Amino acid sequence: MAEVLIGREKLQNWVERVFTHYGFSAENARLSADVLISADLRGIDSHGVARLSGYLRLIEKKRINPEPAMKIIHESPSTASFDADGGIGLVSAPAAMDIAIEKARNVGSGWVAIQNSNHFGIAAYHAMKALPHDMIGFAVTNASPLVTPALGAERMLGTNPICMAIPALHEPAFVLDMATSAASNGKLEIAERADKKIPSGWLTKKDGSDSDNPSELKNGGMLLTLGSDMDHGSYKGYGLSAVVDILSGVLSGANYGPWVPPFVAFLDPLDNLPGKGIGHFVGAWRIDGFRPAEEFKKHMDQWIQRFRATRPLENGNKVQIQCDKERIHHSQRTLHGIPLVEKVWSDLQNISAQTGIVLEQ
Amino acid sequence: MAEVLIGREKLQNWVERVFTHYGFSAENARLSADVLISADLRGIDSHGVARLSGYLRLIEKKRINPEPAMKIIHESPSTASFDADGGIGLVSAPAAMDIAIEKARNVGSGWVAIQNSNHFGIAAYHAMKALPHDMIGFAVTNASPLVTPALGAERMLGTNPICMAIPALHEPAFVLDMATSAASNGKLEIAERADKKIPSGWLTKKDGSDSDNPSELKNGGMLLTLGSDMDHGSYKGYGLSAVVDILSGVLSGANYGPWVPPFVAFLDPLDNLPGKGIGHFVGAWRIDGFRPAEEFKKHMDQWIQRFRATRPLENGNKVQIQCDKERIHHSQRTLHGIPLVEKVWSDLQNISAQTGIVLEQ
Repeated sequence: MAEVLIGREKLQNWVERVFTHYGFSAENARLSADVLISADLRGIDSHGVARLSGYLRLIEKKRINPEPAMKIIHESPSTASFDADGGIGLVSAPAAMDIAIEKARNVGSGWVAIQNSNHFGIAAYHAMKALPHDMIGFAVTNASPLVTPALGAERMLGTNPICMAIPALHEPAFVLDMATSAASNGKLEIAERADKKIPSGWLTKKDGSDSDNPSELKNGGMLLTLGSDMDHGSYKGYGLSAVVDILSGVLSGANYGPWVPPFVAFLDPLDNLPGKGIGHFVGAWRIDGFRPAEEFKKHMDQWIQRFRATRPLENGNKVQIQCDKERIHHSQRTLHGIPLVEKVWSDLQNISAQTGIVLEQ
Repeated sequence: MAEVLIGREKLQNWVERVFTHYGFSAENARLSADVLISADLRGIDSHGVARLSGYLRLIEKKRINPEPAMKIIHESPSTASFDADGGIGLVSAPAAMDIAIEKARNVGSGWVAIQNSNHFGIAAYHAMKALPHDMIGFAVTNASPLVTPALGAERMLGTNPICMAIPALHEPAFVLDMATSAASNGKLEIAERADKKIPSGWLTKKDGSDSDNPSELKNGGMLLTLGSDMDHGSYKGYGLSAVVDILSGVLSGANYGPWVPPFVAFLDPLDNLPGKGIGHFVGAWRIDGFRPAEEFKKHMDQWIQRFRATRPLENGNKVQIQCDKERIHHSQRTLHGIPLVEKVWSDLQNISAQTGIVLEQ
């Protein structure tokens, strides 16, 4: 068995029931399942149901609160801080995004910093909530330290993604969703499963020297920031990751840098934490706070069409627009089902056995 | 003569008089000189007085309006679009930033998209205006196309910088100011002057193949985006640059992508432009829209101190904080003067001869 193909609805219903079993309200279970499945549908396999067992272990260790009482703790007409009460980011980030959208509706833009949260899945899910409102959505989060700053040899930053979702008219929306590390964790996992070497500039060994072995991350290695080395701008990737950490952690009152609690339940958070949980930062700009939305979206169509028509490299593929690949995955997998590798499938079967909530192929 | 060292005040006064000679109001001349000199002080030599003759040629060609009547054309409590009336970005960006700061004071954040403008110098000048107000400043701009999207072989994007300025308490502010290309134009110029080869991954020849010759940019070559190649995330640099272009150009009503007018006066803008001039996008978040400013700034100090203490690479230099280098330049050059390479000095002497406004060493 190389891969199991499973229908989207069946999988989503099962995930929802599992979260309910672990004490989530019906609404929070539904939302959490929706965020995870949307990652699988978009082909971001590392952030989908592959993470479910990790979340469940954190609930078992009481590091994720299944019944959070989330609340705004500080606000202005266009900004707010939001306490996720130790809940899962899959729930707190969409809730915070709803607040941002409401503020943007009222005063043109809205920005919410979230503290006391946990990992929020794919950033695109949250930023894209802005699109149907003719708004530009923004979502970033800090994450467990795996990345070394340029010139360093210590895990100080997460893969700290940046996401921006921008609507168009007839063209599909432009959605940038990128880790600020040179390569994502997911890419290492793919190389590891295929027993392949990785390019120089992705990963170091524990001592900070370059490695072509994807398993070195488990031996204390470090991911490198976008740019990979000083000559190619690793200090820029470090700077972007730092900005994400500061907005998500320092501005919200969450932890930051090396203090961000680990996602894996077998590692405990450090002592003397400077903040609460992990942090996110989301926001929205109302397009007609700047120019009529229809006019903007027409120009976005022109932008997208012109960039698609960029002269390609000789014998090369066409220039793409951000999230072209994810969109193709999304339609194919919605239609034909979500492929799960053996390791993930057996992970889900373990959950199935433990909870008595059966998942069949 | 390898280099001329000139006092900051003398140089700034002279630049101010030159702008006045070209029809700028006293206030706009003073501001424009301040922005250019601040680049030289921070060691961003490519964006300082080295650009003066370029700006003047654009004024002569009536592509920069020396007496713009700038105005807000659309707004909400936290957003605005701003028409720079063909004026210089050195003036329109600070004016727009003042509006953003005022909006942030009123409703927590402020965002201004600027159309019909020209190059705005260093982004840091504008974003850093937020710092004394206990705000986080943001500034991006699009620019003349020199950069190819990932997988492409056509100049479609500018070096499209991103700047974020974040205040601390006792530590100096964190200021990220980065081009979204792998290397800036300035780095190519330095290599060219020193007759040195450049690393692979910065620049292509006209046909899109890699080049180690910094002069290839003048032969129709293209800069590569941050990440340099697909394996190392060039699609991420492309995505960031695209976001900058969309916020600056599409949201404001300025030109975007390949239509952004060239900085060099000997190249004419394309026909059938989709917008007006070049575009910028600036903004500010009031820190106490999220948490008390004093508390935030204390944590920023801790953030900065912890990142400085990152374990360095064996036998390597210490990990830096964004703009450490620029700050050292700034204090040294404020004290000892600004060094100008021969080519720039003779450029200024030509202006001196042409205008009769004498600049002595």
